[in-house]
Amino acid sequence: MTLTCVGLGPGGSDDLTLRARAALDASEVIVGYTTYIDLIRDAYSHKELVATGMRGEVERCRMALERAAAGQQVAVVCSGDPGVYGMAGPLLELAPEYPQVEVKVVAGVTAANGGAAVLGAPLMHDWCSISLSDLMTPWETIERRLAAAAEADFCIVLYNPSSRGRSDYLARACDVLLATRDAATVCGYVRNIGRAGEEFRLLSLGELRNAQVDMLTCVYVGNSQTRVIDGRMVTPRGYQWKAQ
Amino acid sequence: MTLTCVGLGPGGSDDLTLRARAALDASEVIVGYTTYIDLIRDAYSHKELVATGMRGEVERCRMALERAAAGQQVAVVCSGDPGVYGMAGPLLELAPEYPQVEVKVVAGVTAANGGAAVLGAPLMHDWCSISLSDLMTPWETIERRLAAAAEADFCIVLYNPSSRGRSDYLARACDVLLATRDAATVCGYVRNIGRAGEEFRLLSLGELRNAQVDMLTCVYVGNSQTRVIDGRMVTPRGYQWKAQ
Repeated sequence: MTLTCVGLGPGGSDDLTLRARAALDASEVIVGYTTYIDLIRDAYSHKELVATGMRGEVERCRMALERAAAGQQVAVVCSGDPGVYGMAGPLLELAPEYPQVEVKVVAGVTAANGGAAVLGAPLMHDWCSISLSDLMTPWETIERRLAAAAEADFCIVLYNPSSRGRSDYLARACDVLLATRDAATVCGYVRNIGRAGEEFRLLSLGELRNAQVDMLTCVYVGNSQTRVIDGRMVTPRGYQWKAQ
Repeated sequence: MTLTCVGLGPGGSDDLTLRARAALDASEVIVGYTTYIDLIRDAYSHKELVATGMRGEVERCRMALERAAAGQQVAVVCSGDPGVYGMAGPLLELAPEYPQVEVKVVAGVTAANGGAAVLGAPLMHDWCSISLSDLMTPWETIERRLAAAAEADFCIVLYNPSSRGRSDYLARACDVLLATRDAATVCGYVRNIGRAGEEFRLLSLGELRNAQVDMLTCVYVGNSQTRVIDGRMVTPRGYQWKAQ
């Protein structure tokens, strides 16, 4: 039996790939966090939809694997790409307990890329993705990555920049970046990528330090070459682009 | 007038998002590198298709912008995501010379995420994307990023790991990584992601040092927690996952 872990892309159904849609079409039951199930509820109201709360991911994985082991065609949906802070990993970690189930992963557009398209082209050169959530990662590890990324002049995307109980994490992250990056570094953020209420803002790293963002926001920090061109955030493809 | 820069995803037409397909459907002329035009030739044979060679990207952008300025509905296609080592940046850099043209970017699944789905879930935690092409970036900058990424325990995806004239770049990159990463670090690579002839291999960083890969390959280096589980490359979501 096959269980397919499907990325929906960052927004609503428009960001779904054809491969992802085919996987959902072929499924009998679709399992996911309530918010993601809601994104596909209208299109797949004829399927069994199993929505679960944000926590309890291990239980969600087990339930999906058990249904697949029992012979159902199961799809587990994630926003963005299931291989980036998503469900692909937990499912593959638990899969050996269900040897009759083959887990397949169908990639989706991850939020970093979806939001980048809204801002312009901030990730045209080497870039890294860092989550500011310290639920499963020591904050010291996060700070070490921020410092390394800043020193090596990566473009940086911050996932989970804020949430209840840690509203100052973005400011703390910016302080780490500001140790080696100029306060004028071009930054941006996008909220509700690809969904109703999508909004974005370009600002400097110094301004980002004091910005208020929520959990539904992706934050972008440019490299030393990133510029604002006609209101878009653009990172050149290289350090000698102009010389071509 | 609008010029839309569209990501095709890593493979063939299956990896296209619905948003990307709608943009292609709405276009009159589709411009792109020959290999990418070939991926959509059958589906869009009724459109004007303009295929150009790999080099001459500035000329390709100008030609597309000029056609848009002249009133045509133009789509510029890239493999993967146009915002990652693609055409979105060059187009936005040149766009101010064509003030009547609005450039829109439609994200696609980037090769890093498409290949990750083939391998399992190697990018479940913080990760970075590094191109080994030194055509527009000094090799010293690339080495600095490799060293920083290794030291901060990022998962790493290498784009452009090899080409004619620089067949030893992957070995040189591995040497930089091996300065701080264990030779047993779980690695993998995927060739022809999502296309005919797709193939992958899991191997250690020490083995990767001596592997031969080509330009159509994406290379993955795990972090210190990455494991092989039932033949898949899996990075845990956190450092305390097991403790949950």
